[in-house]
Amino acid sequence: MNFETVRVGLGDRSYDIRIGYGLLAQIGIFCQTAGMGGNAVLISNPKVASLYRELVVKSLGSADIKVTDICIPDGEEFKSSDTLLKIFDQMIDAHIDRGAFILALGGGVVGDIAGFAAATYLRGIPFIQVPTTLLAQVDSSVGGKTGINHPRGKNLLGAFYQPQQVVIDTETLDTLPEREYISGLAEALKYGISLDNELFVYFEKYLTAILDRDKECLKQIIMISCKTKACIVEQDEREGGLRAVLNYGHTLGHAVESLTGYTKYLHGEAVAIGMAQIARLSAQRGYCSAAEADRVLQLISRMGLPVELPQFTVTEYENALLHDKKKLSDGVKFVFNQGIGNYKFETVKDLKELLHSCGVRG
Amino acid sequence: MNFETVRVGLGDRSYDIRIGYGLLAQIGIFCQTAGMGGNAVLISNPKVASLYRELVVKSLGSADIKVTDICIPDGEEFKSSDTLLKIFDQMIDAHIDRGAFILALGGGVVGDIAGFAAATYLRGIPFIQVPTTLLAQVDSSVGGKTGINHPRGKNLLGAFYQPQQVVIDTETLDTLPEREYISGLAEALKYGISLDNELFVYFEKYLTAILDRDKECLKQIIMISCKTKACIVEQDEREGGLRAVLNYGHTLGHAVESLTGYTKYLHGEAVAIGMAQIARLSAQRGYCSAAEADRVLQLISRMGLPVELPQFTVTEYENALLHDKKKLSDGVKFVFNQGIGNYKFETVKDLKELLHSCGVRG
Repeated sequence: MNFETVRVGLGDRSYDIRIGYGLLAQIGIFCQTAGMGGNAVLISNPKVASLYRELVVKSLGSADIKVTDICIPDGEEFKSSDTLLKIFDQMIDAHIDRGAFILALGGGVVGDIAGFAAATYLRGIPFIQVPTTLLAQVDSSVGGKTGINHPRGKNLLGAFYQPQQVVIDTETLDTLPEREYISGLAEALKYGISLDNELFVYFEKYLTAILDRDKECLKQIIMISCKTKACIVEQDEREGGLRAVLNYGHTLGHAVESLTGYTKYLHGEAVAIGMAQIARLSAQRGYCSAAEADRVLQLISRMGLPVELPQFTVTEYENALLHDKKKLSDGVKFVFNQGIGNYKFETVKDLKELLHSCGVRG
Repeated sequence: MNFETVRVGLGDRSYDIRIGYGLLAQIGIFCQTAGMGGNAVLISNPKVASLYRELVVKSLGSADIKVTDICIPDGEEFKSSDTLLKIFDQMIDAHIDRGAFILALGGGVVGDIAGFAAATYLRGIPFIQVPTTLLAQVDSSVGGKTGINHPRGKNLLGAFYQPQQVVIDTETLDTLPEREYISGLAEALKYGISLDNELFVYFEKYLTAILDRDKECLKQIIMISCKTKACIVEQDEREGGLRAVLNYGHTLGHAVESLTGYTKYLHGEAVAIGMAQIARLSAQRGYCSAAEADRVLQLISRMGLPVELPQFTVTEYENALLHDKKKLSDGVKFVFNQGIGNYKFETVKDLKELLHSCGVRG
């Protein structure tokens, strides 16, 4: 097998990420190497299950692992306490005990809710994460954030809970719709702009091949993204401070998502807008040069991602920013880019001024 | 202040237990020493709140800590996902952010559900545990077990989550009904029988004073119980093996509770029956002498606790034992006492034989 391994070093919660093309057919062996056996609870959604379930079940079977299937509806609105309680019901009905493990096969919704189920069923059973979207592969496969939404906000309930292993089969990206693929790239690009100049340059140099989903390029991008995020998470597992750097582009991005009701933009698209605006603001503040901000904006545009904020008033943006759970009482903590490949925290008290600088009116 | 401290050493999850008479009036200072400040979410039930809320809020106020009150109904049946979701709703309504902490004031139900809320609100906020029943003081204040019940079984959903500090005010025991008090003593006695011969001898020697709720005796018993449990939990935080020793008397006890619908016996009473039976079985198996088993049975009886199993058939007991979540596929793991003050694990395959030895018929 041709695969790469990224180690996430978190003491007794350390785990490996395997990255390669066609790994799903070997998922049984990967589970075994992570110490899993017996019974697997395979949590997925109808779309992903129709594509990959058979392959996964067969591979698990060849490793003598029995499967209990749980299918949850596709869509962010089902990342809810209702769905979670139904998962628990099915696990209890199937007499799942502490010797079993959860295998999450799908994108962010499946991974987040299945991880939270693993964190809280019988006070925690092991789980293996098999992300099948680019966004989940470069983002939620590192860091142990699990959870569900509340009617009043996203990810308000959850736990930090690390998987036993993450298996990223880049072949699953072959079936990913173009818009979702590009949205995932935005999240990978985030690491380049705010943490890793080499990754940014790699994006600039190989963009055509990346957009063509070149296997080798994808493996590289995912590997570097996971390594970069792991490096941050290893220093700040529970989001005490440094980890906030991963919110680069997200503070404005979340406001955009919230104001547009989570329907107009995919997550990566909203983040792209946030990153473009922050790059401009970073130049205005002297944290990077105008030329560097231009390179960021150009790259985002070349990827086919949006850069301009949708039209809402200053007050609307302000309210959305203040409702983000990362707010502090004395302002909103933003992550700016320092040059390209480095970051700079700044707590902004005058949100109006910042929003005016972004061209927001009213 | 006259108080004792027991340290629970769990690396970066270590915390202190403060034990003394009249500590509630100083709860604000204790919270401060644990690094807490700002906003407290005070979770309690109507009975406990009517007794102690005012005192606690006043003390918190003098430490500049503001209080958001959440009252949950009293009773095991309310340790449910419904109650938990209502707690979340109220916390979100009150704009509780990551700078706040939960203060759990009450018995096991309040502690377990409040701890689980703390573990999962915004992926975890700090919590301070203030147990007001003897059972909660000697049992749930050490070990980080939090959770809720499921219609199909107790504590099926939850998390291991350590508090920032536990404050045990033995004055709260003055208002505890006699039967609840005695039930709590059973859990403390468990440590004596299975782990600490000195504690057992202390019980034998000072039983009259203990039953009179002598302040000094209570402080001693609670302190030794917490220390003993801490020693086990420090070696096996997530119940990988050794921690099962804490189930001494509980495997049969849980079966008794389940068969009688959790209404006839208090938890400690069911455990007392389990301990008495296990002491007899330990003697039969040669793990302890007949004289030692007699001392255990006599002490349990002198405390006014039951020792005989309620009448159910072998099949009923067998089914109840097999539904306990600590079952293994190749038998049920029991904890026997080795002499007094030590333990011996044995996985029992022939449950019928064991139940017959306990005098169960049919």
